[in-house]
Amino acid sequence: MAKNLELVLLLDCYSELLTERQRDLAELYYNEDLSLSEIAEMRSITRQAVRDSLRHSEAFLLDTEQKLGMAARIGAMRRCLEEIRTLCTSDPPDPTKITELTDQGLRLL
Amino acid sequence: MAKNLELVLLLDCYSELLTERQRDLAELYYNEDLSLSEIAEMRSITRQAVRDSLRHSEAFLLDTEQKLGMAARIGAMRRCLEEIRTLCTSDPPDPTKITELTDQGLRLL
Repeated sequence: MAKNLELVLLLDCYSELLTERQRDLAELYYNEDLSLSEIAEMRSITRQAVRDSLRHSEAFLLDTEQKLGMAARIGAMRRCLEEIRTLCTSDPPDPTKITELTDQGLRLL
Repeated sequence: MAKNLELVLLLDCYSELLTERQRDLAELYYNEDLSLSEIAEMRSITRQAVRDSLRHSEAFLLDTEQKLGMAARIGAMRRCLEEIRTLCTSDPPDPTKITELTDQGLRLL
């Protein structure tokens, strides 16, 4: 059960669609970086129950991203806005390039 | 059962989370602009069955937007990018204003 960055981002996007219990355990694991055993002890449940819940949540988050692609779009939009920001520091800024990036951003919406 | 713009936008964002049947009926109603009776005849089901399905889909779409806010963020991001685009048509474009809007966009992500 890898604590990879993708799952942290997906949790950030879709945690509100999880049940309260799933969200609680997933946040302790991914955001607070606790181990399965630490979470089990803290919530007075078995390590296996924690693992099962996290597996369900992960499958749900990956499936939801495959359907909605919100995390991927947010990532692409962030890169696009950061490029615009960088272009604004050139002197003088190139309005054609900024407009191109803006159109690229609009197509992501 | 109002065919309002908000529900068209929500359907656009979240239709992949509906069941295949819910999505089919909702698309006929909101995107193809057919009436309940026309959909009922086309799919050989009762008008009441169409209405019930649409009611469930609407409740689901509104609840999902309340939890994720994706449609609202997309709308705000579109307005932000369009403002940047407009600023690029001024001669010379004001990099400080564009940077402010870019930061505003980044905070929406």
